[in-house]
Amino acid sequence: MSGVWGNKLKISVFGESHSAAIGVVVDGVPAGLKINFDEIKVQMARRAPNGGEFSTPRTEADDVEILCGVMDGVAEGTPICAVIRNTNVKSKDYSQLRDVMRPSHSDYGYKVKYDGFNDYRGGGASSGRLTAPLVFAGAIARQLLKNKGIQVVSHILSVADVKDRRFGTEITAEEISSLKSAVLPLLDKSKEDDIRKVIASARADGDSVGGRIECAVTGLKAGLGDPLFDSIESVLSSLLFSVPAVKGVEFGNGFGITEMRGSEANDSWHYGEDGVLRTLTNNNGGVLGGITTGMPVVFNVAIKPTASIFKEQDTVNVATGENVKLSLKGRHDPCIVVRALPVIEAAAALAVYQFVGE
Amino acid sequence: MSGVWGNKLKISVFGESHSAAIGVVVDGVPAGLKINFDEIKVQMARRAPNGGEFSTPRTEADDVEILCGVMDGVAEGTPICAVIRNTNVKSKDYSQLRDVMRPSHSDYGYKVKYDGFNDYRGGGASSGRLTAPLVFAGAIARQLLKNKGIQVVSHILSVADVKDRRFGTEITAEEISSLKSAVLPLLDKSKEDDIRKVIASARADGDSVGGRIECAVTGLKAGLGDPLFDSIESVLSSLLFSVPAVKGVEFGNGFGITEMRGSEANDSWHYGEDGVLRTLTNNNGGVLGGITTGMPVVFNVAIKPTASIFKEQDTVNVATGENVKLSLKGRHDPCIVVRALPVIEAAAALAVYQFVGE
Amino acid sequence: MSGVWGNKLKISVFGESHSAAIGVVVDGVPAGLKINFDEIKVQMARRAPNGGEFSTPRTEADDVEILCGVMDGVAEGTPICAVIRNTNVKSKDYSQLRDVMRPSHSDYGYKVKYDGFNDYRGGGASSGRLTAPLVFAGAIARQLLKNKGIQVVSHILSVADVKDRRFGTEITAEEISSLKSAVLPLLDKSKEDDIRKVIASARADGDSVGGRIECAVTGLKAGLGDPLFDSIESVLSSLLFSVPAVKGVEFGNGFGITEMRGSEANDSWHYGEDGVLRTLTNNNGGVLGGITTGMPVVFNVAIKPTASIFKEQDTVNVATGENVKLSLKGRHDPCIVVRALPVIEAAAALAVYQFVGE
Amino acid sequence: MSGVWGNKLKISVFGESHSAAIGVVVDGVPAGLKINFDEIKVQMARRAPNGGEFSTPRTEADDVEILCGVMDGVAEGTPICAVIRNTNVKSKDYSQLRDVMRPSHSDYGYKVKYDGFNDYRGGGASSGRLTAPLVFAGAIARQLLKNKGIQVVSHILSVADVKDRRFGTEITAEEISSLKSAVLPLLDKSKEDDIRKVIASARADGDSVGGRIECAVTGLKAGLGDPLFDSIESVLSSLLFSVPAVKGVEFGNGFGITEMRGSEANDSWHYGEDGVLRTLTNNNGGVLGGITTGMPVVFNVAIKPTASIFKEQDTVNVATGENVKLSLKGRHDPCIVVRALPVIEAAAALAVYQFVGE
Repeated sequence: MSGVWGNKLKISVFGESHSAAIGVVVDGVPAGLKINFDEIKVQMARRAPNGGEFSTPRTEADDVEILCGVMDGVAEGTPICAVIRNTNVKSKDYSQLRDVMRPSHSDYGYKVKYDGFNDYRGGGASSGRLTAPLVFAGAIARQLLKNKGIQVVSHILSVADVKDRRFGTEITAEEISSLKSAVLPLLDKSKEDDIRKVIASARADGDSVGGRIECAVTGLKAGLGDPLFDSIESVLSSLLFSVPAVKGVEFGNGFGITEMRGSEANDSWHYGEDGVLRTLTNNNGGVLGGITTGMPVVFNVAIKPTASIFKEQDTVNVATGENVKLSLKGRHDPCIVVRALPVIEAAAALAVYQFVGE
Repeated sequence: MSGVWGNKLKISVFGESHSAAIGVVVDGVPAGLKINFDEIKVQMARRAPNGGEFSTPRTEADDVEILCGVMDGVAEGTPICAVIRNTNVKSKDYSQLRDVMRPSHSDYGYKVKYDGFNDYRGGGASSGRLTAPLVFAGAIARQLLKNKGIQVVSHILSVADVKDRRFGTEITAEEISSLKSAVLPLLDKSKEDDIRKVIASARADGDSVGGRIECAVTGLKAGLGDPLFDSIESVLSSLLFSVPAVKGVEFGNGFGITEMRGSEANDSWHYGEDGVLRTLTNNNGGVLGGITTGMPVVFNVAIKPTASIFKEQDTVNVATGENVKLSLKGRHDPCIVVRALPVIEAAAALAVYQFVGE
Repeated sequence: MSGVWGNKLKISVFGESHSAAIGVVVDGVPAGLKINFDEIKVQMARRAPNGGEFSTPRTEADDVEILCGVMDGVAEGTPICAVIRNTNVKSKDYSQLRDVMRPSHSDYGYKVKYDGFNDYRGGGASSGRLTAPLVFAGAIARQLLKNKGIQVVSHILSVADVKDRRFGTEITAEEISSLKSAVLPLLDKSKEDDIRKVIASARADGDSVGGRIECAVTGLKAGLGDPLFDSIESVLSSLLFSVPAVKGVEFGNGFGITEMRGSEANDSWHYGEDGVLRTLTNNNGGVLGGITTGMPVVFNVAIKPTASIFKEQDTVNVATGENVKLSLKGRHDPCIVVRALPVIEAAAALAVYQFVGE
Repeated sequence: MSGVWGNKLKISVFGESHSAAIGVVVDGVPAGLKINFDEIKVQMARRAPNGGEFSTPRTEADDVEILCGVMDGVAEGTPICAVIRNTNVKSKDYSQLRDVMRPSHSDYGYKVKYDGFNDYRGGGASSGRLTAPLVFAGAIARQLLKNKGIQVVSHILSVADVKDRRFGTEITAEEISSLKSAVLPLLDKSKEDDIRKVIASARADGDSVGGRIECAVTGLKAGLGDPLFDSIESVLSSLLFSVPAVKGVEFGNGFGITEMRGSEANDSWHYGEDGVLRTLTNNNGGVLGGITTGMPVVFNVAIKPTASIFKEQDTVNVATGENVKLSLKGRHDPCIVVRALPVIEAAAALAVYQFVGE
């Protein structure tokens, strides 16, 4: 059962890259929420391909039609269904790909799973395009969180081997504001040029690059989450790994913590001079035993290099049973890290709302 | 809602470190399964503290009483409830810890979440001891998987800065057999001594070390999993992050893939001379778009250094509102990576069974 | 969380009486199912208001647009989203009803639940119109069931005090065929005139009548269902009671069985001369201990008289806090029993598919 | 998946009639609830066989052992596991029943479902004994409801053809108190003798009788419940039909409403002289469109006559494939209606808590 997720907000995502439309039903939006459609558009636009330097030449409007659940701009409390038409689809590009399996795409697994009846065009239901409904739902979650003083913010932690620095123990309002207004959100802005270059270089070579996104959720009280199966990490990771390009998730120092000794890694509790309880470090990313500590919840994800590249690749034709060469054409992003930022934030917002929603 | 997980096998875990007992209800075991209790004991023993060089001086039998669901050693098809008594509990060790928050433990989050009514002794419901019921349930899942030709195997990928090599693209029967019979499962056995030393050194210093566990699931057909929210990675990670010490999960090359170009990272499909379809590399860890490729599903997790250390630490007393020093006493593992191996395998078995079970 | 139901087929229903559209996402339709859209239209037409003698003068096309999940008439295996536009909506009819609570409608409960933000026009999300998506989803379930030799059939058991006879212990192919082709499906066709009269009389008086629908599911093997919470009766009733007008559900003889002694009520097992195992009676409606017996699963539901009547009624204006008189205008069915037949069958099909689906 | 139910309180029931123990895990009890164990004992005792005039000669203590989740009599917030040992089991009574299917019991369906591996002794997992854990969990739910001013009360609506009157539109504190203290809870106490007689007569004949239980939940605010699939009626009925002997559920006037005209059946809203909004009748049982109206939620259930009778019955031996005669021995209730009262109340309490719990 692929498309239904959640609890406080329950979302049902539907659609494929080349179906008539894609969309989402969002169940559980509290009645009376004045929905900020401008903010939704901002988030959708961050994800949409815009033909810019980090993106595919496709431009898709991602215009959303609200079918129900909203009256005069206000949530009625009943399910909201949002539909995005697939307009800019060039099906002919994909006709050769019925039987030739693109490396690093889900083509083969889908073909087996769905006995060949799946819509193979453009990746079908595993297309990155399906993150648009997620961003829509996430944008609503963000508004609900904002009303509770909770913010979700992210930055590019790396692209290829160009690295930004990590969030510090505290995350300031200035940092949040600066990241939110940046085209390339970085803590260390001096890395902008290197990132542009590494992407441009991959594009020039018909190749692609991946990277990491670090995301923080601020304003969370201590005591959220559940032991065992509904730990903060479990719920967040289950949604983050739904984003097809994500191959790793770590909280706080993550894998880095495995090379520290306990005496270094343990986050000491401390009452500050202001009387506020904090930890002096945040190696655990704001979560202990599945429960928030009151520090920012910080995690980062690995985004693999775009699977679609123009370089010739070795692969197979499953109809003929032959090993073949494949040269992809069409429009593909050399790097999806930038467009993935709002997707990761949306996933984080939806996951966190599970713990603070009514 | 913390303790219920799953679908084909639904498990309900209960208990705390110092309650009368801990245990699990396993719902969904197919009627007629002849349960291999010896194999369950083997798995339980791998996890149990045994007073050996990698473990705490505690020795807990982890004897399991089956309350129902099994008749004459065969599953009836109805829920199986397994109970493990907590016998070796020294409550007085913990009396000082009602108000002093141990760093890197869940003490503070729990206290807030449960308004101070939680059983704080020994970590309560967030105790590593709660992984025993998980291993029990996982041992049943393993038997069900084995009957379908699916194996779960893991090795120590690192302890502190001592690193084993990673699984190769193919995983041989010899490797599996060798890892299953080893006390310290390593692909590169020459690292055994270094691992013993790094753990012994941490113990000697009253400190602790963490590490990584790499786990593979072999024998899985292509086409398992679901797009979006029930991706293989989503389901696996949600269960892996339920294990309290896990701070990171990556599939295949995980974070490493972010530094590769697409042309390197993409796993080329290839028909071998035997006519079998494989990928020539497995950077994606056997999962693409949430669906298995037919290659081994490979992932690894970050296990943080044991939070309980004997070195003096800075922390707070929340009753008095003071910053204090804390020196833990009692019995604690200097490194839980070895004992965590069967836990990670159990989580993997339960997660995978979700996709292949009846 | 109102709109998501199910397991093998998971449905997410959305929309309100006067929103832009209503619809449903159906997740879990097996890839490769050739969808019989003609049969879907037949089912939709049975439910749709048609301006006939049993129905409201409204005529709504209930035209369905498929947004995704179907390619060339065949299910892809991914979620199917079906949208039905609300075209024939006369919103002005409802403007007076913002504050005047219609008796026997959900107006007041909704107003409280949704803090007045719900769409009150035409009953909003509790409108009988929301049964259209249910019929759509049910029509797909019926096709899946038919491929397994399972049929769902129903008849009018009563309208007001006019009663049809009940299904016998066996249900013949002739009975099924005759009921499926009838406008007024009755086992005792001699009751047709009386039913027409009792409905016409209610209409003439500006009043309404209710009735009962008896439904049978044939072709089910013994051993389906689960003890306790997923009993056949639990799953069926949970869906049947989702239909707003249903006020009672009974299996087999239901309440009648309470006046029988055990020796009468118990259904004796018997091997027939054909060697087939049957029960000689079916007082338990084909379900014992939550599990099918192999006999037809038979249940009936109480449909209350249409809440909307033209007679003047006593009620309140919650804005002014006054007791007032209310005279409804507009288009209302004097009896919804006939139109409810395909809805009950759809619910039965969806519920039963839960136990036989892949 | 049989044994897990719920949301705010999630319960996992386990055990069979003749397993070592039965029990339940209750997840979601708010931390800090001082558990009234005396009240739990009262509820358990109402359900337990006591050898009295309405019951089987068996006397089972139903002593509950709490394994976890409670410290010093107070809920910790973590799952509570309660275990009841099966002590008074005479397995030899059942040995003949491996292959002879008791009419009106689940024997045959279970045998097919579980391939003959189920524990057939005493009905196994479909035994009425499994209602004991339900009563335990329900007793906790009742305490949580009581703290919110919500009461659950029931009475015998009929035994065989002896009928009590129904609840009126209002339910007084006196009625509640009187019903709670009665051995045979009746609104019309003059029916006590007739009920005793009709049960005694069935017992004398080696036969059994059934009946109806009417239950009311008072103190519920308007606006609880959800449209569609989580309607009050859906959630209540799904749990009520989990009780094996229940064959019908109706809300308010239920099937009776089908013989009323709308003008009669509709519950008029009215502001009383005290300014309180009520309906003048409660034919809809306090629920409209799945949502509470603020009136008492009233429903009744059909309890079938005890399936186990001493009279000789016709049935089959599925091992030999023969039609045979069966004469049951052992200890059986001639009527379970009285013992079912606390079970129905427990189910109601658990279902309602779903809508008012934190």
